Amino acid sequence: MPTDHTHAPGLTSWVASAQAQGNDFPIQNLPLGIFSNGGAPRGGVAIGDQVLDVAAALAAGRLRGAAAQAAAGPSLAPLMALGRDAATELRHALSALLTGAPAPELLHAQSAVAMHLPCEVRNFSDFMASYDHCHRLGSARDPAHPLPPAFHHLPVAYHSRASSVRPSGTDVRRPWGQYVKDGATVFAPTNAMDFELELGIWIAEENEQGLPTPISAAARRLFGFCLLNDWSVRDVQRYEMPPLGPFLGKSLHTSISPWVVTADALAPFATARPAREAGAPPCPPHLETSADALRISMHAALQTPSMTTPHRITEAPFERMYWTPAQMVAHHTSNGCNLLPGDLLGSGTVSGPADGAEACIAEILLRGPITLPNGETRRYLEDGDTVIFSGQAHAPGAASVGFGECRGTILPAHAA
Amino acid sequence: MPTDHTHAPGLTSWVASAQAQGNDFPIQNLPLGIFSNGGAPRGGVAIGDQVLDVAAALAAGRLRGAAAQAAAGPSLAPLMALGRDAATELRHALSALLTGAPAPELLHAQSAVAMHLPCEVRNFSDFMASYDHCHRLGSARDPAHPLPPAFHHLPVAYHSRASSVRPSGTDVRRPWGQYVKDGATVFAPTNAMDFELELGIWIAEENEQGLPTPISAAARRLFGFCLLNDWSVRDVQRYEMPPLGPFLGKSLHTSISPWVVTADALAPFATARPAREAGAPPCPPHLETSADALRISMHAALQTPSMTTPHRITEAPFERMYWTPAQMVAHHTSNGCNLLPGDLLGSGTVSGPADGAEACIAEILLRGPITLPNGETRRYLEDGDTVIFSGQAHAPGAASVGFGECRGTILPAHAA
Repeated sequence: MPTDHTHAPGLTSWVASAQAQGNDFPIQNLPLGIFSNGGAPRGGVAIGDQVLDVAAALAAGRLRGAAAQAAAGPSLAPLMALGRDAATELRHALSALLTGAPAPELLHAQSAVAMHLPCEVRNFSDFMASYDHCHRLGSARDPAHPLPPAFHHLPVAYHSRASSVRPSGTDVRRPWGQYVKDGATVFAPTNAMDFELELGIWIAEENEQGLPTPISAAARRLFGFCLLNDWSVRDVQRYEMPPLGPFLGKSLHTSISPWVVTADALAPFATARPAREAGAPPCPPHLETSADALRISMHAALQTPSMTTPHRITEAPFERMYWTPAQMVAHHTSNGCNLLPGDLLGSGTVSGPADGAEACIAEILLRGPITLPNGETRRYLEDGDTVIFSGQAHAPGAASVGFGECRGTILPAHAA
Repeated sequence: MPTDHTHAPGLTSWVASAQAQGNDFPIQNLPLGIFSNGGAPRGGVAIGDQVLDVAAALAAGRLRGAAAQAAAGPSLAPLMALGRDAATELRHALSALLTGAPAPELLHAQSAVAMHLPCEVRNFSDFMASYDHCHRLGSARDPAHPLPPAFHHLPVAYHSRASSVRPSGTDVRRPWGQYVKDGATVFAPTNAMDFELELGIWIAEENEQGLPTPISAAARRLFGFCLLNDWSVRDVQRYEMPPLGPFLGKSLHTSISPWVVTADALAPFATARPAREAGAPPCPPHLETSADALRISMHAALQTPSMTTPHRITEAPFERMYWTPAQMVAHHTSNGCNLLPGDLLGSGTVSGPADGAEACIAEILLRGPITLPNGETRRYLEDGDTVIFSGQAHAPGAASVGFGECRGTILPAHAA
């Protein structure tokens, strides 16, 4: 992934907050999203604590062309359909606009707008690509066979539910479900509400059904990235999974951060995949690639109703993932399955090897309950608990870029 | 499900072919679909060997109202969103039109039109609701535990792939995939291409996320039905399934018959579910219902390139299904998952208990290879083979209604 002047660490914007220390949206980021402020939802770009209104910039003559037009409407799907070259063209135009003549009339405060899904989620496939996540949970279950049998040969995945994906900030209703309690099957509100800290991947363009996207072309299918909370209901999931996999344990709700951090914005953070462990089979040739892992620190924080600030409970390294987003695309299309613009992939829980890098509660509990600064403890999530994800890409010599937040609060189950 | 004069067995249409013996589309059926004949795709109704053009009937003043308008465009999703009452209103108007003053100018020969998907498939969930399918395959694997552990408590299901659903007649490309051959993992064209004979279920209306559709209201979410071939790649499926279920073994292609046989049209064929086997746990109260099984005979036929006519290899009774479509809806939404108009459910392979009622090749092979009338044999499907599904609902005193056909031909795999 080549980088260019839009990534220069010294670049500054006339939007002063873009230069604020620790800010997720410096001029090097330029993530795209769909916002509204009373009127119809439309395309915007996060810059500092502001949103640049793409339609207003077009109307003012500060943007032009097909890429900007495709990003101005109520959905980013048209831009995803145009593909990576269009996104690159738009990035350059946005960088020029936001480093050029000030135009504060094109801005809205992020605090004053509502964020929507970047597009209708067409299909959602969820992977299980972290060695540490699989190995930690698998070792607890069956120490002799901690990993799924195909783990070294392909990125294990399942089709998940597209209709229930919601933007950050949407509350999450505790679901009812069937599970085993005291030896009997019950239908009751879950007692095992969990989160899974994942990276979401938005797909660019469409491959014709029957025609795989080879690994050599797979990186060009990665439009952009977000944070993704694959809310998981462990008691229901355990009960229902054999043999067809997760269903109602996952389909209740999935939360995503609303800003799409483009593949271009993450180019400076590419790095080599971690080496395979000694004795592991090699990567199959049709999935072999290089230097397409991404250096992203991902975080989960928990805030209970009696806490005044969130407490970080997970810090996980995305660069440890065993399979990369490009490998996921190559695998997913290897049978000819057509991936569409507006499709969303989940990376799977991004856990690292260290204590504190467990990216879901099921893993944390292997060390014991969560202890919070105010003395409270948690096994699974309780009503009123809020989970907040954040993430920052970082690399030596590059300006860090972030994802904003992905948050959700657990509402009590409906009455019977 | 009440019936009315539109079901009367003696009812006849001015479309003479509607009265032809063994015809799937008598006046009592009135299935909806999207067709084109050179121009833009638009709504139509199958009657005998003809298609009634809904937009033309509106323009001619022979249909009117919101329901007909919703069925006239390039997708049936607007009518599915309006729901069952609108579909009933349209059924009555169509019955009146096609039994009233002849209007042959509103017809197109089915042989002269192309059929499309009835709407964009929003989400596709596939169930495994046949006791006989599960028990037959499970007994071969593990005679002591033939059924999935939750089988008696819920209709087992997984999220499947929406983007790769195609109308009958679209060829199916043999996929590449990873599987074990001679003890090693290979990536190669599959050697185990199978079909699964299923009923497809189109969903009406939308339930708000977090709000289940109770079993008492679930039947009203059933818009209509089609035949569905859940093409399955057994070697790939076996390899990839643990622990997250089927993925690339299913997502290559799913075929459906293009005509939507409405829930109203099937009302005369409702019957009681089969009794649970002795000693089985009772149906959970939140899924308990009655008389919503459907009497449908489903058939699969195979035609190889050297055969001149198809040969029936499967005859299966849908009324034997352990879980009904309404129970599937109640279960699917029981965690608050929102089902949308345009969502498609698959019933799972509709096998019966008898020899000859195995509704996929994996089951047939437990008795041995398929022997065809011309002396050919088949284990799994070979290139050029065509699979053709048909189905007819039947009941004493009712005019039988059918589904048309769902067919697909296997194309050779792409070169490496």
